[in-house]
Amino acid sequence: MKKILISNVEIVTDSPAYKKKYIGITGNKISYIGIKKPKGYEDAYQIDGTGKLAAAGMVNAHTHIAMCLLRSYADDMALMDWLQNKVWPAEAGLQKGDCYVGTQLGILEMLKSGTTAYADMYFFMDETAQASKEAGIRACLSRGLMGDKYDKNDERLKENVQLYKDWNGADDGLITVMLGPHAPYTCSKEYLKLLVDTAGELGCQLHMHLAETEQEVKNCVKNFGETPIKYADSLGILDRGCLIAHGVWVTDEEMEIMAAKKARVAHNPQSNLKLASGIAPVEKMLAKGITVGLGTDGATSNNNLDMLEEARLTAMLHKGVTYDPLCIPAATAWDMATYQGAKCLGYDKLGKLEKGWLADIVLYDMNKPHWYPRNNRMSLLVYAANANDADTTIINGKVVMEKGEVKALDAEKIYFEADRIAKRLTGK
Amino acid sequence: MKKILISNVEIVTDSPAYKKKYIGITGNKISYIGIKKPKGYEDAYQIDGTGKLAAAGMVNAHTHIAMCLLRSYADDMALMDWLQNKVWPAEAGLQKGDCYVGTQLGILEMLKSGTTAYADMYFFMDETAQASKEAGIRACLSRGLMGDKYDKNDERLKENVQLYKDWNGADDGLITVMLGPHAPYTCSKEYLKLLVDTAGELGCQLHMHLAETEQEVKNCVKNFGETPIKYADSLGILDRGCLIAHGVWVTDEEMEIMAAKKARVAHNPQSNLKLASGIAPVEKMLAKGITVGLGTDGATSNNNLDMLEEARLTAMLHKGVTYDPLCIPAATAWDMATYQGAKCLGYDKLGKLEKGWLADIVLYDMNKPHWYPRNNRMSLLVYAANANDADTTIINGKVVMEKGEVKALDAEKIYFEADRIAKRLTGK
Ligand SMILES: [Zn+2]
Ligand SMILES: [Zn+2]
Repeated sequence: MKKILISNVEIVTDSPAYKKKYIGITGNKISYIGIKKPKGYEDAYQIDGTGKLAAAGMVNAHTHIAMCLLRSYADDMALMDWLQNKVWPAEAGLQKGDCYVGTQLGILEMLKSGTTAYADMYFFMDETAQASKEAGIRACLSRGLMGDKYDKNDERLKENVQLYKDWNGADDGLITVMLGPHAPYTCSKEYLKLLVDTAGELGCQLHMHLAETEQEVKNCVKNFGETPIKYADSLGILDRGCLIAHGVWVTDEEMEIMAAKKARVAHNPQSNLKLASGIAPVEKMLAKGITVGLGTDGATSNNNLDMLEEARLTAMLHKGVTYDPLCIPAATAWDMATYQGAKCLGYDKLGKLEKGWLADIVLYDMNKPHWYPRNNRMSLLVYAANANDADTTIINGKVVMEKGEVKALDAEKIYFEADRIAKRLTGK
Repeated sequence: MKKILISNVEIVTDSPAYKKKYIGITGNKISYIGIKKPKGYEDAYQIDGTGKLAAAGMVNAHTHIAMCLLRSYADDMALMDWLQNKVWPAEAGLQKGDCYVGTQLGILEMLKSGTTAYADMYFFMDETAQASKEAGIRACLSRGLMGDKYDKNDERLKENVQLYKDWNGADDGLITVMLGPHAPYTCSKEYLKLLVDTAGELGCQLHMHLAETEQEVKNCVKNFGETPIKYADSLGILDRGCLIAHGVWVTDEEMEIMAAKKARVAHNPQSNLKLASGIAPVEKMLAKGITVGLGTDGATSNNNLDMLEEARLTAMLHKGVTYDPLCIPAATAWDMATYQGAKCLGYDKLGKLEKGWLADIVLYDMNKPHWYPRNNRMSLLVYAANANDADTTIINGKVVMEKGEVKALDAEKIYFEADRIAKRLTGK
């Protein structure tokens, strides 16, 4: 089996004792972590970790990656004006091949900024799967589903089911598939029942926007007599296994249900601020034992896929709004960005640097002023580091980026194509 | 006079029409901006701006730069525990020469991340002035003042006065000096009167922490019968010209006073969140015509000096807490980070790329995934860019950084010294 040996590297979670260590990788797993040079790695691919900090790759637990094509097209607008007059008309122009490029652009950005896995919900998902496979990134994909009938021939659902059959477990398990009901306000009750039944037949989980805005909650109560999480639970969505995107407006009672049903939440702090959706009670969710990963949401509401920014903002924002400077310390924010994110995507042994766990590892170059002095590396990573510090990225035991160069992607070509497509979509 | 010509560069404020332009610099001022190649720059220092975005340098309107030495030493703590058990004991160990290195470390970080000027309040300010002069950065310095008597021989005040005499207007005007009363809770009323009188004699302004926490307001009302801004105003502080650090807890009436007296505010959103101080009503201040610049505060409460992060957070945070997605659009956040920051420091023609204005210019390298597609460069800069994208930095008509290399600073030496000093200060 293929092996990698990283030498003389520091490990972020070792605080406060940072000894230089070796990390051995065999196949797709971490096979050694220790101070002594291990035997049996003489022929391994060698990486010099001097001056680098090793950490688990971050998991972007909610995005719409191909929306990178609309980055900076429409900002500082009210939600409905933004959707109706900008985003939706532009998306209506998406053609075959566009989302492949949009996905490549997003992957390039994520690999360069320490993210090794992502959960996505959009359309043209075959193209997103293909681009992910080629780049070697870990992806949990769902087709955004909207509908009003219990109709097994619904085109979108058929696409999502086909995506599941074609791609779930593909590429050595790097790609998995969920069903992607968009939201309570774009799916009828009958349609959601259809999705729950279909998920049951396939044995797959769901990824759904829930409780994002106060207006959504009000409408949900008006139309269905329940708040969104209770409504979704009444339809069996949480029993199938659900990744909840946002979860901003959730009641204490709903959080109890979420904890009991092991629902996972993708918290998108920057998107929630930018669209003025609200601030999720993340500290309460964590206290109740709910898994909370972090996501960027699409690049139209962010506008980047920088997960370090989300981890930092999570630690900062919830201190500020709870008036508690002890709320969400650096290590908790980092756990959310990595291990809890991996759990959001359905993984078990992913998101920590431990022997036997999946080898998704990022080395950060600490030879920058903001990494000095080296009092506490976890604090430095979460509160001071810069996404561009990511130097080497390993996913599933394979080096996908080294010294800032993403191996499988042609950056110049992607930039050129993305600009060309964006001009067409935005009518420029 | 020395000249610089930047060719084929795009200018961030040109939105939406980005034509490639020439920027000419003569002496310390911008002497040409236009599409045609100007005459008279044949012997100028030539900079190729292809693929770069030119913007005014950012102004860090409030920091304690030498506190970079304590970066990541004490995080996720309650304010008083943090100050009494960590920050103050460590600061007590500061020796001659330490703040020189701490300042160099902070300058290196700022120059590498698009910041060309800063306002500081700390001690050993001669060392900070010297390091600033050597690096070529624009600095507005004040000695942190605490005291209880009207005593013209107060040692701290004497230092600040001497700093003013030695350094105000020094280095071609790059360095200016203010008096630095620390806060209403560390200066007695008599002492503040002394500072106001001294500022009047010198003809200099004041830089003071005001209305940072709710507790400060309560104590101020209890001890002096007034909220902090009204209290400061009653002592004549606002009439001398005042840079107010924080201004989180200010009443409508106080904002009217601040506007009338042309007080300027340094808003420190990240520090305010991290220390759970509160969220300043920045949108109200701007509506009342108050100048609001942005600051990082010290690296102990941030933990970096990344001004792009503060600009982004300002645009995001106030949308979120006001539930208004139109609040503080990108261009406003950028204006705060540049032009309004320059006004905080007392400058008139600084902070915009305009003919006749001071030549503090940063070129950002847009050859990164997060800069694509190029729908709107102002949005890209404020919402998507990374501080590491700063490629070339010009201050007062002098190139201080080119292709990421800071000319006057030896990074390796600074890192080594900073780590050595930090170990001594923190007892490791
Ligand atoms: Zn979303
Ligand atoms: Zn301060």
